[in-house]
This record gives sequence, structure tokens and C-alpha cells, in this order.
Amino acid sequence: MSNPLKIAIAGLGTVGIGTVKILQNHAETIAMRCGRPVIISAVCARSQKDRGVDLSDYQWFDDAHTMAVQSDADVFVELIGGSEGIAKDAVEAALNAGRHVVTANKALIAHHGTALAKVAEAKNVSLNYEAAVAGGIPVIKSIREGLAGNAVTRVQGILNGTCNYILTTMREEGRNFDEVLKDAQQFGYAEADPSFDIDGVDAAHKLAILASVAFGVEVNFEDVYVEGIRHVSATDIQFAEELGYRIKLLGVASMTEAGLEQRVHPTMVPRSAPISTVEGVFNAVVTDGDAVDTLMQEGRGAGEGPTASAVLSDIMDIARGICVSTFGVPVTSLKPSQPRPMGDHRGAYYVRLMLLDEPGVIADVTAVLRNHSVSMESMLQRARVPGEAVPVVISTHVTIESNMLAALEAITNLDSVTEAPRMIRIESA
Amino acid sequence: MSNPLKIAIAGLGTVGIGTVKILQNHAETIAMRCGRPVIISAVCARSQKDRGVDLSDYQWFDDAHTMAVQSDADVFVELIGGSEGIAKDAVEAALNAGRHVVTANKALIAHHGTALAKVAEAKNVSLNYEAAVAGGIPVIKSIREGLAGNAVTRVQGILNGTCNYILTTMREEGRNFDEVLKDAQQFGYAEADPSFDIDGVDAAHKLAILASVAFGVEVNFEDVYVEGIRHVSATDIQFAEELGYRIKLLGVASMTEAGLEQRVHPTMVPRSAPISTVEGVFNAVVTDGDAVDTLMQEGRGAGEGPTASAVLSDIMDIARGICVSTFGVPVTSLKPSQPRPMGDHRGAYYVRLMLLDEPGVIADVTAVLRNHSVSMESMLQRARVPGEAVPVVISTHVTIESNMLAALEAITNLDSVTEAPRMIRIESA
Repeated sequence: MSNPLKIAIAGLGTVGIGTVKILQNHAETIAMRCGRPVIISAVCARSQKDRGVDLSDYQWFDDAHTMAVQSDADVFVELIGGSEGIAKDAVEAALNAGRHVVTANKALIAHHGTALAKVAEAKNVSLNYEAAVAGGIPVIKSIREGLAGNAVTRVQGILNGTCNYILTTMREEGRNFDEVLKDAQQFGYAEADPSFDIDGVDAAHKLAILASVAFGVEVNFEDVYVEGIRHVSATDIQFAEELGYRIKLLGVASMTEAGLEQRVHPTMVPRSAPISTVEGVFNAVVTDGDAVDTLMQEGRGAGEGPTASAVLSDIMDIARGICVSTFGVPVTSLKPSQPRPMGDHRGAYYVRLMLLDEPGVIADVTAVLRNHSVSMESMLQRARVPGEAVPVVISTHVTIESNMLAALEAITNLDSVTEAPRMIRIESA
Repeated sequence: MSNPLKIAIAGLGTVGIGTVKILQNHAETIAMRCGRPVIISAVCARSQKDRGVDLSDYQWFDDAHTMAVQSDADVFVELIGGSEGIAKDAVEAALNAGRHVVTANKALIAHHGTALAKVAEAKNVSLNYEAAVAGGIPVIKSIREGLAGNAVTRVQGILNGTCNYILTTMREEGRNFDEVLKDAQQFGYAEADPSFDIDGVDAAHKLAILASVAFGVEVNFEDVYVEGIRHVSATDIQFAEELGYRIKLLGVASMTEAGLEQRVHPTMVPRSAPISTVEGVFNAVVTDGDAVDTLMQEGRGAGEGPTASAVLSDIMDIARGICVSTFGVPVTSLKPSQPRPMGDHRGAYYVRLMLLDEPGVIADVTAVLRNHSVSMESMLQRARVPGEAVPVVISTHVTIESNMLAALEAITNLDSVTEAPRMIRIESA
């Protein structure tokens, strides 16, 4: 049997310990599958407390950077997190020391992916990050290798389990955002400071990575349009159901002739679209390719086991000698990302207005839409309370976002409109 | 740039031509992704008719075996089909000549996979067959590499688009099997001789391959339990809906302490299970692993584009130097498949009886079930026509198949039972 592959693990939180457990418990199978043993040689964390697994055989480091430089490992596994600071320093050091890197750090790859890939390529080592996107779903491998013969046209996904849990619970229980968020925090599905998840930043990190792999462009997190789920109301969720949609926080990246569109926002997806059935904490990624048509992958996007499963896949690829360019093509072949401005986005829209129930108000609204070249597909007014404000819901045909926004501004200024309109984008299947 | 990878394609039907098209149209992208050009050097088919693509640059062979031996290709792509005859001879010849083989031939791999893998391993070449299972879904790669750190416990799938189309249409339109099959044949979703699909053989081929990859066992098609969809009635589909299930032709492989269970049969899956939402010609594979929990992959299981997409993935893996053991571990490490007899299967059951509507008949039936240690979960009798036969539907708790079959035999012999009971297995999510 060939030389063992030696692993150094930085970060012994849930995922780090999960990775240790698999490497310990499945050592024999892993060796058989890889054609060589995969062994842990070093670990590091902030404190040496008891973590319920035996770490005594591994060299202990207090500092990830020192381990990245000094350990005898072939692979440096970064499970610390954060786009800057020690995680970044240690990963750079490990690559520069000629070690392969496996990381679950989406923020790091979203912010510095292209630069790090350059270093990895120069040093002829792998930089693998399957666990950074959609947890246990092998989506990076699927796009980079499984769909390698395709020109991908769009990749979209439910990339944040916290948001999907909140939206699912709001729908199922007819409750409002604030309440459900509080529950989610109690159950451990949302952080004490939930903004990273619910404001869409986490999903945007993952989307930027997916877009790079799918389209062969430099990672460009800065140009992702991001809108979170704070403003989604139980009322909108109910109207969505009535109209045959479900509301999901979707990340969507598509390559258009005018450039790359990357956007994360609450989205109405048709009930007939497979992604609409993905509920609770589950993640899913749908990839459209010119040959494969549509591929959907659904699974757990977080947690000890699923994330460690993805980390193991990356490690075992290295053990097996599988080495693919970080983003599917050599760094020098990555195209600079030319963002298409969000104002140029073309799509259908859901708009909920609060309108005084008076003769002529609908005519005013439809006139504004017409003046901005927005074509209405449906209109729904359920309640009738003459003289008071009632919800009126409009869905449009495909239109240009800048026109839609201008129309909404004009509508807001109508006397009969009592509060700011709510707009949610519709994504076709 | 490195040496080009040379491809010889045997079989120029839909998939063969689809493969040629992608290699021609995406040549530049493919070269960039692989780090080397991938070029067709030879093709062969039964006749040299016009196929709408320019084949004039490629060496023409009338015979696949001759091409396997004499062409200068690095990779022999077998798209002929059939488990014996020319496909098998040519693949063996190609492997023995030291060429990599890519095939979409499920029958060949299901019947001869282990033996062919042995040859490939001895010659140190790849034998890739992503297109043989679930068309465009990169399921072999996902299990063999993406979930490599997992002990897979169960793999199940909707592996035949024809059957799924028929069952979906039967449900949506409330029509019977024979009618819908005829339509499917007219629309080109079913063959003139549909038995291979609707009797479950095609799904069984794919399941045997999946089981080998998932559990590291020798391919054992002979021991797959196979039951097709001919006997599924519109009535059963309707009752399934009422009970919260959907009927799918499922292939299920699970590793138990008593051995490997491989079975293909119409199955009631809970509406809450993601696989129940997979409709029409789509395929899906659900893999349960100890770390990843559950992964579902859904996509097109057949057709020019999706199948060629999988063939390209296999070819590009070879171009990129990705070489993994055929079934995930070296052939010598494959465990002999120890089948668990179907009589030992443990599961829940749906049973539809036609019972004379008379006092005491339900008591007779439940007594038989009790005597065979079958515990009833629910009973449903919708119609009341005293003195005549009415359908009565029973669902059971988890029980042993042999007990269930013995109970059904005894029930059949009751005077009040007017026709043979219909039994459909229930699979938990």
C-alpha cells in the first residue's frame, strides 16, 4: 500500500470533531477506497479541553498558522471560519508551504477565492472547498466534474437552511417573521445574531462560489445583489400559495449576454418547480446546463455529519490523486466577472399594495404600470372594505427591473396608496 | 498544452451523435477544463448514412471490435448497448488493448461489471459508466467520490423514466395502465416492446450497479428481486393518494446484517418524502449515508443531451487524469454479494382486497393477519353494497415478507374474498 496521506486539522468545533470521528471510525474503508491510509497527524484549536474524542495520537498546535507551517501534514484542513485573520493567514501559509488545503470556509473563498486559487496553482496543490457550499450536497464536484461537458446557463439554490426553516415554518403555521425567528434561535436553527443568515450574506457567499465554478469566472462576491427575508410577511406567503407559488430565499446566478447576474433575494417559485418542495433546514441546488437540461440536488446544508462528509470527500479526492483546477479551469483562464446591473434584470414580479377601497384606484395603478411598460399578468383583491385600505396583489409578465422600480415609486406617490408596496421577484422554473 | 486525448466512438445513435456534437461544439471549453484537447479520432456504426454531423475528419470503422483493437484512440466509448455480443466483445478488446472505456451500457455493467473491472484494473485503465445509471444525474460520481467518507446504508431511486411517466399520467388523469402505455408508445416515451422497461428489468440493471458502488460489493444482477408495474391499477393509485402515498417504481438496495437486499417493485412512498415529488420522465436517486444523512438527486434519466452529458463527464475525468476504482474500491476488495432472501424483507404493506360486503368478513381477515403475526395499521372500506364485492384496503405495520405472503395466501382462500388480493410494498422515507 502507498504512503499514508497526512492530515492537519485546524478548528475542532462541530465540523472538526465530525471529521476526526469519520477518519477514526472509517479508517479501514477510507484506506481501501483511496488505495492508501489517510491519517491525522496534527490538530489545533484555541483550547485543549475534552471534546469526547481521543486526540492524544496527534501533534497538538495552539496556533493554526504555526501548524500550517511546521506540521508534517500533506493536507491542511481549515475549519476555523471567517474571511480574514487567522483562517486566511493559515490557509495562505499552508499553500505556500506546498500543502493541499481543504476548507469549509465560504466567506474565505467568496472573498479571496481567486487569489488563493492562484497560489494553489503556482504550488501545484489542491484547494478544495466542497463543504463551503450546501453542506453535504456534493455540488461543487457535480458542477465541476459531473457536468463538465455542459455550458451552464443558470445555477440557483436554497443555500441557507436557517432562512428556509423560517420561511417554511411561517407558511406552515401562518406566523410572522419575528416570532418564528425567535423560535428558530431557541431550537438552535438560528444564531443569536442572525443577520448573517437572514440578511442573505451567507447565501451570497455560497452563490458567488457557485457562479465561479459554473461559469468559469473570477469569484465576485462584491457584485452579488443581496436582499434578506426580514420583510417577508405571513400575508405575502399566503398570497403566494393562492397564486401557485412558494416563497424561498433563492440565490440565482445566470450568464447573460450582458454579463453575469448574481442575486440573492426572497423569490416566488412555482409550486410545480422541484425546488419549491425543498422545506425546513434542507438546502438544494438546481443547475441548468445545455446538455443535461436540469439537475436538482437536495440535502442537508449544515451540521456535523453532512459538512464533515463534504470535507472527507475533498480529503479523499486528494488521497486518490484527483486534482482539478480550483474553479474548473486554470486561474489564468477564469474570465473577469462582468456584472450585469440589477436594474437590467428581466423577470416577473409580485407586488402587494395597500390601496384605499375606492372607485378608480385600480385604474390609477394600472395606468402607472402601463406608463412604465410593465405588463400585468393578474390582479387579486380579496377583501372589500369601502373607504379603507385593503391588500391588492398584482403579478406582472417579464419586465425590466428598472421599469418595475420606477413604476413602484410612482405608485407609492398615488393618494390612494397607504403604505409602501411590497415587491417579490418571481423566478420561472 | 499537453497531448490531446483521442476518442473512438462506437455507436452513432442518439447518444453517440449527442456526444460527437458536444465534443465538436464545446471543443475549446473542454480543452480549457481538461488542460488538454479532447478529440475524436475514430467512429463506427452499422451504416455510413448522413447523421447531420460532419464525421469526415474521423477514421471510419464498420466494426466496433476492429476499432477497439486497431484505432489509435486512448478512450473507447461504447454506445452500442446489449449485455452480450459485439458490445461486450469490443469493450473487452479495448480494455485488453490498454484503452480506457466509457460506456452507457447498463446491461453490460450489470451482467459483467465485476469481470470487466478486473480487466480494467489489470491494464491500469478506467472503466467509466456514469451514463448507465440515471442519465444526466452524476450519481456514480456522487456516491463513489462525493460521499466517499460515508457508510451508505440505503440507495433508492426512480430509475426508469418510462415507468414514472406512466404512473404519473395514470394518477393525473385517473386512467388505467394499458391506455396510458399505448399513449406513451405513441409519444415515444415507451418502446414498441415495452417489457424491458415496464417489467422492471432496466431499473434492476441500474440498481445492481448502484448497489455495487454504494456498498462495495460485486455486481449481482441475478439476485435483484424484480416486479414491474403492469398490475398497478388506477384504483390502487387513488387509494394511495387517500392514504398519503404516491406509487413509484422504486429500486431499493440496502445493506443489512443478514446481507444485501436489492429489489425493484411498485412502491408506496409517503407524500412527505422528496422522492414522491419526482414526476413524469424524471429520474431521481436518494442515497442515505451515515454522515451525510440523505441526499436526493433529480434529473433527466434519458435522452440525447442528458446521456451525452454523463458520457462527457466520464471522458473528461480521463482527460483530467481522474482515475478511481470502477466500483469505488479495488476489484479484489469487492465483497461477494450475499443476497438477503426477499422472504426476509421487513417492511410495511398495502393490501387491497375484494370482499363480499357481509357481516363478519373483516373479522375473518383480521384473524388471518393476527395468526400470521401481521399487525394492521389502517383499514379503509369506502363503498357499501351489501352482498356484493367491495374494495377494502389495509395497511400494515412493519412485518416480515414471508409472513405477509402466507397471510395473503390464507386470505385468498376465504370464501368472502372474490379475487386475488393486490399487495404493494410501502417504503419509509
